[in-house]
Formats: sequence, C-alpha cells, structure tokens
Amino acid sequence: MTVKQVKVAYPLVLINYKTYLESLGNRGLLLAKTVERISKEYGVCMVVAPQFVDIPRIASEVSIPVFSQHLDPEPAGSHTGHISPESIKEAGACGTLLNHSERRLRADIIEDSIKRSRELGLLTCVCANTSLIGKALSILNPDMVAIEPPELIGSGISVSKAKPEVIRSSVEMIKSVSSTTHVLCGAGITDGMDVLRAIELGSEGVLVASGVVKAKDPEKILKDFAIALNQ
Amino acid sequence: MTVKQVKVAYPLVLINYKTYLESLGNRGLLLAKTVERISKEYGVCMVVAPQFVDIPRIASEVSIPVFSQHLDPEPAGSHTGHISPESIKEAGACGTLLNHSERRLRADIIEDSIKRSRELGLLTCVCANTSLIGKALSILNPDMVAIEPPELIGSGISVSKAKPEVIRSSVEMIKSVSSTTHVLCGAGITDGMDVLRAIELGSEGVLVASGVVKAKDPEKILKDFAIALNQ
Amino acid sequence: MTVKQVKVAYPLVLINYKTYLESLGNRGLLLAKTVERISKEYGVCMVVAPQFVDIPRIASEVSIPVFSQHLDPEPAGSHTGHISPESIKEAGACGTLLNHSERRLRADIIEDSIKRSRELGLLTCVCANTSLIGKALSILNPDMVAIEPPELIGSGISVSKAKPEVIRSSVEMIKSVSSTTHVLCGAGITDGMDVLRAIELGSEGVLVASGVVKAKDPEKILKDFAIALNQ
Amino acid sequence: MTVKQVKVAYPLVLINYKTYLESLGNRGLLLAKTVERISKEYGVCMVVAPQFVDIPRIASEVSIPVFSQHLDPEPAGSHTGHISPESIKEAGACGTLLNHSERRLRADIIEDSIKRSRELGLLTCVCANTSLIGKALSILNPDMVAIEPPELIGSGISVSKAKPEVIRSSVEMIKSVSSTTHVLCGAGITDGMDVLRAIELGSEGVLVASGVVKAKDPEKILKDFAIALNQ
Repeated sequence: MTVKQVKVAYPLVLINYKTYLESLGNRGLLLAKTVERISKEYGVCMVVAPQFVDIPRIASEVSIPVFSQHLDPEPAGSHTGHISPESIKEAGACGTLLNHSERRLRADIIEDSIKRSRELGLLTCVCANTSLIGKALSILNPDMVAIEPPELIGSGISVSKAKPEVIRSSVEMIKSVSSTTHVLCGAGITDGMDVLRAIELGSEGVLVASGVVKAKDPEKILKDFAIALNQ
Repeated sequence: MTVKQVKVAYPLVLINYKTYLESLGNRGLLLAKTVERISKEYGVCMVVAPQFVDIPRIASEVSIPVFSQHLDPEPAGSHTGHISPESIKEAGACGTLLNHSERRLRADIIEDSIKRSRELGLLTCVCANTSLIGKALSILNPDMVAIEPPELIGSGISVSKAKPEVIRSSVEMIKSVSSTTHVLCGAGITDGMDVLRAIELGSEGVLVASGVVKAKDPEKILKDFAIALNQ
Repeated sequence: MTVKQVKVAYPLVLINYKTYLESLGNRGLLLAKTVERISKEYGVCMVVAPQFVDIPRIASEVSIPVFSQHLDPEPAGSHTGHISPESIKEAGACGTLLNHSERRLRADIIEDSIKRSRELGLLTCVCANTSLIGKALSILNPDMVAIEPPELIGSGISVSKAKPEVIRSSVEMIKSVSSTTHVLCGAGITDGMDVLRAIELGSEGVLVASGVVKAKDPEKILKDFAIALNQ
Repeated sequence: MTVKQVKVAYPLVLINYKTYLESLGNRGLLLAKTVERISKEYGVCMVVAPQFVDIPRIASEVSIPVFSQHLDPEPAGSHTGHISPESIKEAGACGTLLNHSERRLRADIIEDSIKRSRELGLLTCVCANTSLIGKALSILNPDMVAIEPPELIGSGISVSKAKPEVIRSSVEMIKSVSSTTHVLCGAGITDGMDVLRAIELGSEGVLVASGVVKAKDPEKILKDFAIALNQ
C-alpha cells in the first residue's frame, strides 16, 4: 500500500470518530473527504481518527493525517486480538491516540506504547483528565498531551468556556517539564469560538468527536474551526 | 463495500494470523489467497482471522470466511479505541474469535459479545483452556467453542497427540449441555495427521496459527490439512 | 488463631459489607454480633462478608460464618497486592464471594478461584447478572450461584418483587445442569417479604448489603429476615 | 483500635511480605517482631507490608510502620471486593505500596490513589520499572518512588550491583522535577552491601521481599541491613 506522506502541523484539530455509526465505513470516508477539502482550502491541519478497520481506506484515499484511536505495545507475534503498532503503521496511520478516557491505560503500558510508536515513526497523543496527570505523562515524551476533563466530554459545554484555567495551567505545567510537548485540549468543543479560546489560552489544538461527527452540518462546523485556527 | 456471501461449514480449519509480521498487510492477503485456492480445490472450509486493519481488503478480495480476532460488546457510540461489532461486520467479517488465551475476557463480557455478534449475524468462536470452562461457555450459545490447552499453544506439540482425552472429554461435556455447539480444538497443530486425529476424536475443526503462518511452505501444510479434512 | 467451626446451612442470608463506612471496623464487629444473636435466637443461617482487614477479628469473636468479598487465585508467592486464598482461610473465613457486579472476573479466573478455594476448604458464592451466565458459571462447580440483576442493586426495589421470573428461571436453568449448586438471589432486598418471596420462588438464600448495613435499625430488619427464613 | 503512632524516617528498609506463606499469619507477626527489635536496637527505620488480613494484628502488636501492599481509590460505598483506603487506615497502616510490578495500575488510578491516601494521612510509595516512569509518577506527589527493574525482582542479583546507573539516574531525574520525593530502589537486594551501595548511589531506602522473608536467617540479614543503614 503506497501511503501519501502527510504532515502534522500545529495548531490542529483532531477528529475522533469513536465507534459512532455516523462515522463508520463509507460515511466516515465521506467525512474524511470533507475534512480534507476544508483543510486544504483554509491551509490548516486537520487529523481524523477512524475505527481500526477504516484506517487503510481513509489513509489511501484522503490526504490528511490519519490516527489510530489506540494501540497495544506488545511486540509482533503471539498476541491475538491486539492492535499491533505495525498494523496501524502498515494501514497508513501516522499516529495514535493513547489513554483516552474511554480506554485508560496502565502507566507502564503508556510508556511502552510511546516507545513502540516512536520506533515506528508514529506520533502519539496521550489523553489526560487533569493538568497534573498531563504533566506526569508529558515526561514520557509523547508528541502531544490532550487535556480532557471527563465530565465535559460529549456535554456540549466546552472546556475552553467552562474551565479556561485548566487549559492555561496545563500548558504551563506541561511546558515547565517538557518544552517540546504539544498541549491540546478537548471536551465539549462545538464551534469556532471554543477553538479560538482554546488557542488563545495556549493550547496548540483541539480534540473533537460528537461536535463534528454528530453535527447536522459537519462541513459548516469544520469551516468554523478552520477560520478559528487561522486567527 | 459489497461483500461476497461466504458460508462456514464443518469441519473447518481456522487460521489465526495473530499479530505476526508474516501475515500482516500484503503477505496476509497472499496467504488468504493461497487458503482460498486450496479451500476451493479440495472443497473444504478454511477461515482466516487477520489483524483488524486487514479485514476489509481480505474480505473483499478473497472468497473465504473472514473472522475478527476479538471484538468489544459496547454499543456503537462513545467508546474510543474499542473494536465495535458494527465495524467488524461492515469490514466484511462473518464472525469473530472471543476469549483467546492471549485476550481473555470477563464472563459477562463474553455473554454480551456473543449476544451483540448474534444480533449482527456474526458467528462466534469462544476459546477455552479447559474442558470444564468450554462446557460452561457453551451455555452462552456461541456457535463454536475451541479448546486450547495454553501450555501447548505455539509448542509444535499438538493437542491431538499430547492430550487426546482433552478433545474427547470436551466434545462429550459440551454436547451434553449444548448439542448445537460446534467443538473445535487447537494448540500445536502442525500437520494433517494432527488434524485427522482431532476430527476422529470428535472435534469439528481446528484452530491453527504459527503452524501455518510461520511455516516454510504454508501451501504444503494447508493441502495436508485439506486432505485430512476430506477423510 | 483458633477459629470456631461454623457451618453454612440453607436457606441463608448473606450480608455483604461492601466498603461502607457503616460496617467498617468496630461498627462492623457490632453488626456481626447482632447478626450472631439473631441467627442463634431464630436458628437460621446468616453469613457476613466484611472488608478484608476485618475478617480476622469478626471470625475470632463471632460464631457465624464469615466470607471474603473476593480472592485472587494465584499461588502463594510473588503476588504483591493480591488477596491470597491462604490469607482468607488463615484469617478465619469459611468462604468467599466471587465475580460480584462491582468486581467482575475473567471466566478462566473464576474457574481457577473456585478450584483454589475448594482445595483450601473455602466455600464459593459466584455472582451472576443473568440467569444464563448463572447457568454457565454453575458448570464450574461453585457451592452457590447468586443471581443479581445489576440495575436493581441498591435500588430498594427487590428482585423478588420486580423480577420474580428471573429467580424462577435461574433456579430451573441452574438445577438442570448442576443439581447440587445452591441458587441465591439478591438486589434490592429490604424486608422479610422480599426474602419470603425469594424462597418461595425456589431460591435458597439472599444476598443483601445496604438493606441491612445502611438500615436505621438493622436488628429489626434482620429479625424480619429470620422470621421469613423460618416460614 | 488504638494504634501507636509510628513515624517513617529515611533511609529505610521496606519489607514486602507479598503472598508468601513464610510471612502469613503468626509467622508474619513473628517476623514483624524481629524487625521491630532490630529496628529499635540499631535506631533505623524498618517498615513491613503484610497481607491485608494481617495488617490489624501486626499494627496493634508491633511498634513499626505498617504499609498495605495496595489499595483501591474508590470512595467508601458500593465497591465489593475493593481494598478501601479507610479500611487500611482503620486497620492501623500508615501507608501503602502502589503500582508494584505484580499489581500495575492505570495512570489515572495512581493519581486518585495518591490523593485519597493523602486525604487520610496515608503515605504512598509508588513503584516504577524505569527511571523515566519513576520521574513521571513523581509528578503525582507520592511520598516515595521505588525504582525496581522487573527483571531483577527475586533474582538475587541486586539492582545496586547490576544496575547502579539506574539508581543514580533515577535519583537525579526524580529530584529534578520533585525535590521532596524520596527515591527508593529494590530488586534482588540480599545483603547489607547491596543496601549500602543503594544508599551511596543516592537512594533513601530499599524495598526487599524474598531476600528477607525467604532467608534462612532473616534476623541476620536484617542486622546486616541495619548496619548498612547506619553507615
């Protein structure tokens, strides 16, 4: 499979498909094509994280960075049912989410997963529920740490409106120990104003899921995000 | 994605690709095509269980039943990093392994996974390390129960040679409570004689992994299996 | 530690202390003494399952059967932080709960835990959320299976009132494959009428937690239960 | 239960009883009394971490600090089978191990466990397999971080002999982000020379298990340790 090289740039919007039916199979591919069009039109970086089985087609048909939603760090071999990093890479993904609130991981597994990803040239975005755990996990050298207060996920109340101090303190705390880590935030992001505020507070990108995937008009939302990223 | 209808028939050979590099991506597709050719030539049922990202291509390009190695039973929605049954189905798989010794599950999760699979028309093959647990899990109405003594997995010493009584008692115990469950066995299967013995002992199929995937000449082994299935 | 021999008899009431503060330490000991008094006065079997650290004192100072709330099946040795079956036995418990809805277990771990408990002479009461999983787990030869619809736990709406058919079908299904398994039920039990109904429906005992531990007058409730058990 | 106040001081030796039969029940109590005698004789701090059910008796009969081997952070309540922090505190422990290699935890659970322990006045010693994870976890403000290369645990080859650079770099890395965290080390410690080297390399204490618990003459080993601590 020849995968076109696509680069991640900051600030970015990362769209997590979760296991929503609205973003499965063909519908997920169509959404990725919309993301690609807007990403190019506005010159901003937008990443999609589809379900595992949908990575190969999206990665080969769409020129935007594709992330996995998770991976398991065990070496290739006798590990039935695991998400091998090699399979993610081979499928055309350029990175992965790790430790999402819906898929929390052991601390040592996070370390191993980051190491394995790095060896294969996969970027890592480690999720964290608090500034403190975000700071701790940034020590493990992921490329990005995404702060998501779990109580706001899917709430429609954005972290940038409801908890601006969480974003500000996360950026400060994480940069104090790991200046090269990119700090994202997420939870409840639904419009460009949420994105704009997040960036103004020091974040280098946002994680969004239902806000795009379940939107009546995802294209409109994505344009709104793109305009915010450009300001 | 138009998926050709492929039927599972007994006795069968189920080839578990695990996370071996030898069966990832193109190499896994080639192996599946070899399996397809032999399956047709000998008129026997052979199933492959590739890594998740490889299911769509194999299911669309090869006319043999494709299984997932695992799935998570949660409903479609906010479940980042889960293997949704819908994604497996949409990708073209017709069934799934569950509770493999390398991916053991909680009892209640096995029940939920079987229910969810059935609702979507996915077959289930539940693995078990002992006859007793195989009997217990057959109560949950999976389509198949596969008995695999863990100490023999990958050993090259076949369960049918080393523990024939385990196969015999498993068949008897499982059929006594669930006459419609198909009993498979696995672990250490490397040649046609192993398969033949397993069938003679009452098994309706075998699970094999490294014995095929890491074989110097997988085609030769598969033919050997096919001849055994036809006896 | 000399532990007085205490026998379990059916029907019984098993009082799960969970991690409630109301049943920790001295308060848990006092509750156990109340249970003992009523158990003797009415000649009925009542069992308590305190937190781990409280097992030794209750088992040595009170003459009723004491259960653990959980145990881990690994052999004695390098297993830091595990609840060893030997420690439970040595502490004076005569049995253990397993697979409670708040501490679900892998199917193979349940099998191992039952085996290890039996070897040490510890009784096992395996919890199950559905009749079907209760039937499946009864195959593993626990002494008791307790059916508890999770949605009713702590609800104050008793399983015997809200889901009598669950109790009836559980008893029938479990006895059909394992005639020696004692079938208990639980969830929402708060008065003698709940207990009476449960017994009339074929259950051989009830699991209760907040209904006793958080009652304003536990003694009154326990007497009510005892009278029901005697009818 | 009146628990005598006992203070933890550095450098210290922490003796993990694991689930060894040699340190269960009366034998564990006797060992704790030996530890107490030597601790007083030499004026050094020695801590024991017995199995859960043995905490109350050791804590009430022996005047040395007693640790739990693990705890679960959920609030008191409906958490059957959990090790509640309140139960550990009530039983007389003054602290707990967390994230031992035989009981690894999710990153967010470690954070919650440290918070809950602190609220109750329980000390925390978080284990880590590498310097990097030790540094990361020190951000979560445990009282101690213990570095234990898993491949040396129970090996009889001490970390201070085999991997002195791991101790040195751990101390440096951890102190650079969390100057108040005490750095311990463990794995393969069997004699006073191992302890002495560990201290010289900057460690403020050692974790030991089989080296004491399974020793032919634990008293002799403990004296050897005490002498080393005093140098």
